[in-house]
Amino acid sequence: MRASHLEDFYSFLRFPSISTDDDYSERVSECAHWLVEKLTGIGLKAELVPTPGHPIVWARNQHREGRRTVLIYGHYDVQPPDPLELWDSPPFDPVLKDGYVFARGATDNKGQILSHILGVQETMEQRNELPVNLHFVIEGEEEIGSGNLGNFLHQHRSELGCDVVVVSDTGMIAPHTPTLSYGLRGVAALELKVTGAKIDLHSGIFGGAVANPATALAQLLATLHDRNGHIAIAGFYDDVAPLEDWEREAWKKLPIDVDAEVLKETGAPALFGEAGFSTLERIWARPTAEINGVGGGYQGQGTKTVIPSHAIAKLTFRLVPNQKADEIIALAKKHLEKNLPAGVTLAMTSGHNGPWYLTDPYNRFGQAAQRALQKAFNAQVALIREGGSIPIVSDFRNVLGVETLLLGLALPGCRAHSPNENFPLENLDAGIRMNQAVMEELATLR
Amino acid sequence: MRASHLEDFYSFLRFPSISTDDDYSERVSECAHWLVEKLTGIGLKAELVPTPGHPIVWARNQHREGRRTVLIYGHYDVQPPDPLELWDSPPFDPVLKDGYVFARGATDNKGQILSHILGVQETMEQRNELPVNLHFVIEGEEEIGSGNLGNFLHQHRSELGCDVVVVSDTGMIAPHTPTLSYGLRGVAALELKVTGAKIDLHSGIFGGAVANPATALAQLLATLHDRNGHIAIAGFYDDVAPLEDWEREAWKKLPIDVDAEVLKETGAPALFGEAGFSTLERIWARPTAEINGVGGGYQGQGTKTVIPSHAIAKLTFRLVPNQKADEIIALAKKHLEKNLPAGVTLAMTSGHNGPWYLTDPYNRFGQAAQRALQKAFNAQVALIREGGSIPIVSDFRNVLGVETLLLGLALPGCRAHSPNENFPLENLDAGIRMNQAVMEELATLR
Repeated sequence: MRASHLEDFYSFLRFPSISTDDDYSERVSECAHWLVEKLTGIGLKAELVPTPGHPIVWARNQHREGRRTVLIYGHYDVQPPDPLELWDSPPFDPVLKDGYVFARGATDNKGQILSHILGVQETMEQRNELPVNLHFVIEGEEEIGSGNLGNFLHQHRSELGCDVVVVSDTGMIAPHTPTLSYGLRGVAALELKVTGAKIDLHSGIFGGAVANPATALAQLLATLHDRNGHIAIAGFYDDVAPLEDWEREAWKKLPIDVDAEVLKETGAPALFGEAGFSTLERIWARPTAEINGVGGGYQGQGTKTVIPSHAIAKLTFRLVPNQKADEIIALAKKHLEKNLPAGVTLAMTSGHNGPWYLTDPYNRFGQAAQRALQKAFNAQVALIREGGSIPIVSDFRNVLGVETLLLGLALPGCRAHSPNENFPLENLDAGIRMNQAVMEELATLR
Repeated sequence: MRASHLEDFYSFLRFPSISTDDDYSERVSECAHWLVEKLTGIGLKAELVPTPGHPIVWARNQHREGRRTVLIYGHYDVQPPDPLELWDSPPFDPVLKDGYVFARGATDNKGQILSHILGVQETMEQRNELPVNLHFVIEGEEEIGSGNLGNFLHQHRSELGCDVVVVSDTGMIAPHTPTLSYGLRGVAALELKVTGAKIDLHSGIFGGAVANPATALAQLLATLHDRNGHIAIAGFYDDVAPLEDWEREAWKKLPIDVDAEVLKETGAPALFGEAGFSTLERIWARPTAEINGVGGGYQGQGTKTVIPSHAIAKLTFRLVPNQKADEIIALAKKHLEKNLPAGVTLAMTSGHNGPWYLTDPYNRFGQAAQRALQKAFNAQVALIREGGSIPIVSDFRNVLGVETLLLGLALPGCRAHSPNENFPLENLDAGIRMNQAVMEELATLR
């Protein structure tokens, strides 16, 4: 690891580029400016593209006819560091410990996107040239929903024309195991409000005569699943594509004990999920209906003998091929209306949604990525899906018409979004090699 | 209405005797001192009895052998006036409008207890003597659970020896309808905490592999009732005494349309309750299991895709004769443990409880009370139970060994505990007459 690389990493990490907090807008902007300077310094033409929110950093080399064009996407904004008291060192004052750099954004996404920048830097230094036409698109709003990225893609659609997108914002299945993620789940949100009386009622004076919205909501939510973890909404699974045989076989061979790891990571008393499926299938290839939040009535200390006037629940569904968010939300609404207990009213509000993603890891770009990963890590490549959602990947497909290679460098213990986020320097190094290898493979691909 | 009575009422109401707020301790104390002075002024021997909390005001006339002894209980503390912006006039600056006095505590309990004090005053002025041996016990902690009253009763048990207790802290079924409440429901609290993972989890990364505590809690709470509003806890109704025929008949004749009134007061979209029972039976004579509060995960604006680490619910059961709080809590715990969904743990904490109360309105004291009510209001007496709980009434039975006559003067629209609390001056007058009549009836009772 060159000293200048570590210096760059620390400089990048010292910006508290917290996109969700308006108090930090200036620091977010400073971070973007630093990136422009860095990208210019390594020989690219870099610019800040203003948006109604935080700016997008866009950098290119000199494009030439007849070369393949690659777009590398990343983000320079980070999650807030709270709760601060759980950090062992200040979140924006990076420290190196046993080969790991601890700081907010170390993995998500500064370490990962920087390894691509440093990979390009090394190639430029070695050859004064890149083997491909390159775009860096590094946004500042990923942690708040990428609200302005779609518009940027639409506006610059022709200039951004490319053959493939590379993203390092996913995970490695285990340390030293290069990982290509070829699938993501989608997400669709729905909020429920069950209302009874116009005000909280005295549960002595009125208890028994009118419905309790918290009880009605519990009864309603209890209809979402059977006790085997199967979702009970009529038609919910109609479009779910079964896992392909090669996937089931490949996942069995992954070098992890996923059951033990999930138990350890979560501290849950037991695994629990849809009967008839393995843990990986449940997370990567089966849809879910989760209650993200529920609330109503008195939640403080002690007792307050009220019948709440209303109770709310926030739901999200994780979707898999070939479910469509709009159809799932419509089915869910129909189910909830049908199962509403007596004596209350129900209001439902659909929230954001993002589609699932599935690409063929054995198409020519996928094969190139596998070769590059194998070369950079000198180890067998794991082919996985992920349970999370990265809606922008579908934007790349829909707006630019290209597939995305998800070449994650995040380790299972990286604590992205949590206190003591960290990134191993060996992954920064591996990322640099991976960037060079993947550019080379994509350039020479027939 | 004598001008001095109105002056006394206004003086009493001007003290912001908010027992729950430490900032008001001095004002609570001033209110207690005012009462001692007032009671001394009408010829009683009055004292302040200090407690670890707010003092108890205790006043007696000269007791004589061979007379019946009556204890009149009330409280001088009030609920906080919040939300202030919903008051049409300042809560501690009483105003008279169309015969109603508006102020915090006007009904609960200053107007009601003052009518007894003024009744005693008038009798003393007329006869320089009362027909009974009298105790006034007026506490300052009713709105915060009467935590020190039981100890006071125990400590002064022999001095407080009496034949019957009179309390005006309940309701009249309708204006101009004198009302004797002969039953109250009990209450027992139980708090649940369902826990899954040790921290909130990313619902993409882990969704499907571990149980969601909010889902598990909903499923658990949904087992408490069937869809007919019947409580599904095994053994829950075993000790419930059926309503007596005379009660059902008497309630049918009450001069109110209770269904219409509950709909109007609550604004609920419909009535809902245990199938097979009328609204009054459901409120007054059937037990309930209410969720007073529920919470877990993200309840703010928008979406946060977490699997909550835990979810809580606060339950209270309203109990009726002959249910025992401890047994009901034990049955509920057993039911909840048995119905706990897989993959989560359950912790349960019992809260406060208070027994139901039922007395015979046709025993000799009840008959005396009915005669007094009839005389004071010149109208037929309504015999009712109430759905709320007044645990101290059981203390009077258990510690002093006597029954309590609940002679409420609160009207349905009195807004006790709410903004614009009010009390009609005609009820202050009626309360004065009622006090005199009930003392006389109790004195002359064979």
